[in-house]
Amino acid sequence: MQSTTVRIGFVTVSDRASRGEYQDLGGPAMQDWLGKALACDWEPVPRMVPDEQPQIEAVLKELCDQQGCCLVVTTGGTGPARRDVTPEATTAVCDKILDGFGELMRLESLKVVPTAILSRQIAGIRNSSLIINLPGKPSAINDCLMAVFPAVPTCIKLIDGPWLETNDDFIKVFGGC
Amino acid sequence: MQSTTVRIGFVTVSDRASRGEYQDLGGPAMQDWLGKALACDWEPVPRMVPDEQPQIEAVLKELCDQQGCCLVVTTGGTGPARRDVTPEATTAVCDKILDGFGELMRLESLKVVPTAILSRQIAGIRNSSLIINLPGKPSAINDCLMAVFPAVPTCIKLIDGPWLETNDDFIKVFGGC
Amino acid sequence: MQSTTVRIGFVTVSDRASRGEYQDLGGPAMQDWLGKALACDWEPVPRMVPDEQPQIEAVLKELCDQQGCCLVVTTGGTGPARRDVTPEATTAVCDKILDGFGELMRLESLKVVPTAILSRQIAGIRNSSLIINLPGKPSAINDCLMAVFPAVPTCIKLIDGPWLETNDDFIKVFGGC
Repeated sequence: MQSTTVRIGFVTVSDRASRGEYQDLGGPAMQDWLGKALACDWEPVPRMVPDEQPQIEAVLKELCDQQGCCLVVTTGGTGPARRDVTPEATTAVCDKILDGFGELMRLESLKVVPTAILSRQIAGIRNSSLIINLPGKPSAINDCLMAVFPAVPTCIKLIDGPWLETNDDFIKVFGGC
Repeated sequence: MQSTTVRIGFVTVSDRASRGEYQDLGGPAMQDWLGKALACDWEPVPRMVPDEQPQIEAVLKELCDQQGCCLVVTTGGTGPARRDVTPEATTAVCDKILDGFGELMRLESLKVVPTAILSRQIAGIRNSSLIINLPGKPSAINDCLMAVFPAVPTCIKLIDGPWLETNDDFIKVFGGC
Repeated sequence: MQSTTVRIGFVTVSDRASRGEYQDLGGPAMQDWLGKALACDWEPVPRMVPDEQPQIEAVLKELCDQQGCCLVVTTGGTGPARRDVTPEATTAVCDKILDGFGELMRLESLKVVPTAILSRQIAGIRNSSLIINLPGKPSAINDCLMAVFPAVPTCIKLIDGPWLETNDDFIKVFGGC
């Protein structure tokens, strides 16, 4: 019998954090946020990788295909610098890209910093999993999730994933049963 | 002598509507809207296809290349689900993609529903034809056409198509003679 | 010893201007704007090319690779017409595309004209150079640079270029020393 517990992947992409030279703040911030948002049983599947495209692709595939995560969120590696390759890795493993996520996240972040336009963060679908790139900074992670999450449960349902029950007092999502 | 009547293609993309299991609401909604907007002589060329990329590509090519439509609007198949492939088909037959259309349509739709970011609708140019993906829901079709149509006559003129005369009391377009 | 003078490339893309049938207004408008914005020593490297993708690619590569320009701005060739190929040339020579630039420039231009959605202008990174497509019209060049330039010095720094000192009374940029 298959477990009904929802699994969510958390990927910290950072050369320094994966070498232990830097404390991972993005990963815990994403987990905290989901902990407040979700009302259903769920289980985090955390991963950490350096800014290497093949390794990011491999971890995204593992979380979607082997771990059965219906949602995978990443933090880091979306800027213009040479080592920033998270969007490239995400594009490579996805069947469809949802441009509206990146557009809305940049628009929200622009209210805070003009450098929001430097972010190449995207979201896409791999089979029945939704992958969303988030910024590195915890406050920006919060702003982006607040903006796009209202559409996330409907998205996951449309790709034949489970319905994510949420806490209405923390985040108001669209649809529901 | 070539007819000066403007021809406009209307493509309903839907598995269920093409099997007759579901009434096509999007196609008539698009035709109604254009009927109110256009002040010139024009002729609709309606088509219905299932959510199959090769069939959608074939009908888009036929409408642009054989039927001489300067504008082709589609409804349906732009979401994140596995069978949604209208944007893929549109991209495959277009020479240029105009990202501004999708961005603005999502922005307008976001005023109504947060799930607007799930729409992958795009617009593009094939030779002298403009192809625009629209949502499936009639009210969303109206919202999107109201937002982008002011730029449509100029666009068609720039790609060597006819100038579309419009009803100023219904929609205010940019440019004109 | 290498010069510390910042070099900036200015590319006017226009069939008519390059044949001398039309006065180049976009090139001087871009140079004027940068002249007001920059507080550091800088040197313009101006070029003019017809709307031919191989020639545009060649001049972009020369400005980035041989001339050492950390920033290259282009004017013209971003519309939907058959000869408009500046974004295609820019994409071809860039390692990364920064979608946020095009999104924000279109959003700003939409406040002025509804045909802003017809612009396919983009920005991207080639090694340590940032390339930005701008419109052809001087007033639109100003609107677009005002919108995106606050993020430009940070972007160039992130790709290992120099820090561009700016005039705070003309344009307020993010970051700085």
